Amino acid sequence: MVRAAVCGTEGRQFESVPVYQKMANNKKIKPIKELPSGFEDRQEKELLIRDFIISNIKDVMVKYGFQYLETPSFEYTESIGKYLPDKERPGEGVFSFKDENKWLSLRYDLTAPLARYVAKNFNEIPKPFKRYQLGTVWRNEKPGPGRYREFLQFDADYVGTKNLQADAELCILISEILEKCGLDKSDYTVKISSRKFTDKLFEKSKIKSKDQISITLRALDKIDRLGWNEVQKLLGDGRKDKSGDYTKGANLKNEQIKIIENSLKNQKPDSEDILEIIKIFESYNFKNYKFDPSVIRGLEYYTGPIFEVNLNFEIKNLKGKTIQFGSIGGGGRYDNLVSNFGNLDYPATGISIGIDRLVFALMQKKDFNIKLIRPVVICVFDQKRTKQYVEILQKLRSSNISSEIYPGEGKLKKQMEYSNKIKSPCVIFYGDDEIKKGEVKLKNLKTGEELSVKIENIVNEIKKII
Amino acid sequence: MVRAAVCGTEGRQFESVPVYQKMANNKKIKPIKELPSGFEDRQEKELLIRDFIISNIKDVMVKYGFQYLETPSFEYTESIGKYLPDKERPGEGVFSFKDENKWLSLRYDLTAPLARYVAKNFNEIPKPFKRYQLGTVWRNEKPGPGRYREFLQFDADYVGTKNLQADAELCILISEILEKCGLDKSDYTVKISSRKFTDKLFEKSKIKSKDQISITLRALDKIDRLGWNEVQKLLGDGRKDKSGDYTKGANLKNEQIKIIENSLKNQKPDSEDILEIIKIFESYNFKNYKFDPSVIRGLEYYTGPIFEVNLNFEIKNLKGKTIQFGSIGGGGRYDNLVSNFGNLDYPATGISIGIDRLVFALMQKKDFNIKLIRPVVICVFDQKRTKQYVEILQKLRSSNISSEIYPGEGKLKKQMEYSNKIKSPCVIFYGDDEIKKGEVKLKNLKTGEELSVKIENIVNEIKKII
Repeated sequence: MVRAAVCGTEGRQFESVPVYQKMANNKKIKPIKELPSGFEDRQEKELLIRDFIISNIKDVMVKYGFQYLETPSFEYTESIGKYLPDKERPGEGVFSFKDENKWLSLRYDLTAPLARYVAKNFNEIPKPFKRYQLGTVWRNEKPGPGRYREFLQFDADYVGTKNLQADAELCILISEILEKCGLDKSDYTVKISSRKFTDKLFEKSKIKSKDQISITLRALDKIDRLGWNEVQKLLGDGRKDKSGDYTKGANLKNEQIKIIENSLKNQKPDSEDILEIIKIFESYNFKNYKFDPSVIRGLEYYTGPIFEVNLNFEIKNLKGKTIQFGSIGGGGRYDNLVSNFGNLDYPATGISIGIDRLVFALMQKKDFNIKLIRPVVICVFDQKRTKQYVEILQKLRSSNISSEIYPGEGKLKKQMEYSNKIKSPCVIFYGDDEIKKGEVKLKNLKTGEELSVKIENIVNEIKKII
Repeated sequence: MVRAAVCGTEGRQFESVPVYQKMANNKKIKPIKELPSGFEDRQEKELLIRDFIISNIKDVMVKYGFQYLETPSFEYTESIGKYLPDKERPGEGVFSFKDENKWLSLRYDLTAPLARYVAKNFNEIPKPFKRYQLGTVWRNEKPGPGRYREFLQFDADYVGTKNLQADAELCILISEILEKCGLDKSDYTVKISSRKFTDKLFEKSKIKSKDQISITLRALDKIDRLGWNEVQKLLGDGRKDKSGDYTKGANLKNEQIKIIENSLKNQKPDSEDILEIIKIFESYNFKNYKFDPSVIRGLEYYTGPIFEVNLNFEIKNLKGKTIQFGSIGGGGRYDNLVSNFGNLDYPATGISIGIDRLVFALMQKKDFNIKLIRPVVICVFDQKRTKQYVEILQKLRSSNISSEIYPGEGKLKKQMEYSNKIKSPCVIFYGDDEIKKGEVKLKNLKTGEELSVKIENIVNEIKKII
């Protein structure tokens, strides 16, 4: 009978709670093998690329003087600011639980928890406070293909400074991380803009209604994907897409649209904060940025400069079709977030990378490779010879060669199938004959070659193969 | 106005959902700064020790030929086998959500998801299958002091083999991990026992009632903490503790208790599986184990050998009191878990480490230390000199020295307060005078010493300090 764990903070601490047998209403249930939509198992290659990225991030973060911090996955719902759940599907957008008499939510980003952390520890933190965090975030999306509900995010933030040096460094450190991960300068662009740019644009074109502003922003965010002509429809009286679906327009007048078009064409930054950041970029000799007024991400959240990091190499979706991949990260200045906790005036700026997206992209990049290390397999002819097999095993492992004694039972054929399946570089035969002669037979599984090797030369010979 | 993220798989992708303003019922709410009980922020030192442990684990796992795998945090509740929620507090013991028409749960361990993974990918996996996983697990404990509701766990498992070589290697690899983390052989013990030992014991002492077996097992698990005399009461007609609380006993007869006492005193393993494992230990020349029949963890889950890893050095709780720390990990053979998914006969064995507990212990171990790297701070006298400051900064960073230009605004006094607060090793003054002379002033913040250094010598001088 299978039992499940219910408590304990150590390794496997199990209590005798019967499992799998029945639901609360005594109906018998059967376990299912599938995963809920939006959740995925991750394989070795993906995980190793992720580790590689994370290790680069940590190196850069130390070099840039950021403090390593981790907040828990759960926060009080009211701390990270979502509507409290009131429907059958609790907390549209977030995963929430009722706990005693308060609601808890799984974090949906790392910024809201940072604001909570700063408010909680305001007297203890350095001012300004530079921290980085790596962590899973969850979004309770409506299930559907390609919609992930958990992903790993990296955030670096400055809290407590208005200095635009901070914003500039965020763009520069992202670049350093990407280049450490093997990207060339031509592989990515840091796009910058500012909320101040669009503020000015709306003023100039006399767009005042909240509704029009909001539709206009969403429309401008789509230039990349739809092109100016289609976006123009969205700014005007609306647009019908290929499927026939109609999207309401902003109902701007022609001259308003013209003003926007010219402002975007101009492509020359005129807001003070962007000019200042560009000056700082020049001090760093940092050139891999582009002012792009169509970057408008999260505008209602941000208060100043905003950034977006785009990849320029070809990326395909799982069906093999080249896609407009979109950004792998971004951020901006959010001067009012911390102040929500008790009137602290505490300006901040930050940047994020969606690690899973970066992994997805790197896996497709030419010349990018990560080595999977597979064990050498020592075949078992006779369980009574374990001592001899272990001698070989320890010889290899003490030279840090990945290796194992075949871990199951079964004949040589089964052992070879296993070794091929795990893509072992080579297997070792150490039968009675070989033991007598003080040598092993080495079979290279790529070439099929077999070689007799004296025990004392085994490490060297294997190093030639792996 | 603050807005919260609702969707998107990239970095900071925000949508305009107003936040913090009101609950669903329109009552105004205020964000709170505290964390729900059982959840904690984690600081740099703790995180670096954790990274150190994880990196050692990964090295050992590669060397031992385990495959790196990750399953998601959520599973269908019925897959990982818990009672389905039916109370106000959903899913006693686990965090569960209703999703469309099925329940999802956050994993409470890494073993149940492994069984699901194996069942789902049965045709694709190597047989036997060796995998390791590192991941957060959640337990929906009743909130209370010292009860954590999320913690990081490491698991290594063999699936698809009855070979006790597997069980032996699990004990050996745990030892190698601990020693790589800086423990001496005297700092830890791998305790082994077997379900077969207690099975035999119950047979010998003619204990047949399920209730008596269960109370007896729980009682024996407490020998470490209570001593034999108190445990004897629990085996008999019950025990009153210091607080006056009464625990019901197993009501064993005196001769039954005597048989148990003798079996435990004997301390000599007589079950076949343990004898076999000990023989394999000898092949490896592995001696740091102890047969201990009082190890009975998760007995109803396990089917064969069981292990527990205990630390032998002094560990204090947060109040400074030396505590019986208990195990930092363990595991055992569970031959029936996978078979619950569709009649696959697939024996397995595994071991876990509670990483957070190991971090807690290592932080207290004498001679164990981890270096926190703090940035050198370049003070700002004049924002117009950014270019000059950046020159120094890039010089340091290109030599991989953690460094920053003071990231805020404010006078030198504030900058020095900041530098002391972050425990910077030294600050750099590069004012107009120094710029003219082509040198910087270096202030060692530990000694207070100031030193004038030519620009070209700055890296060498700083390396002496940090």
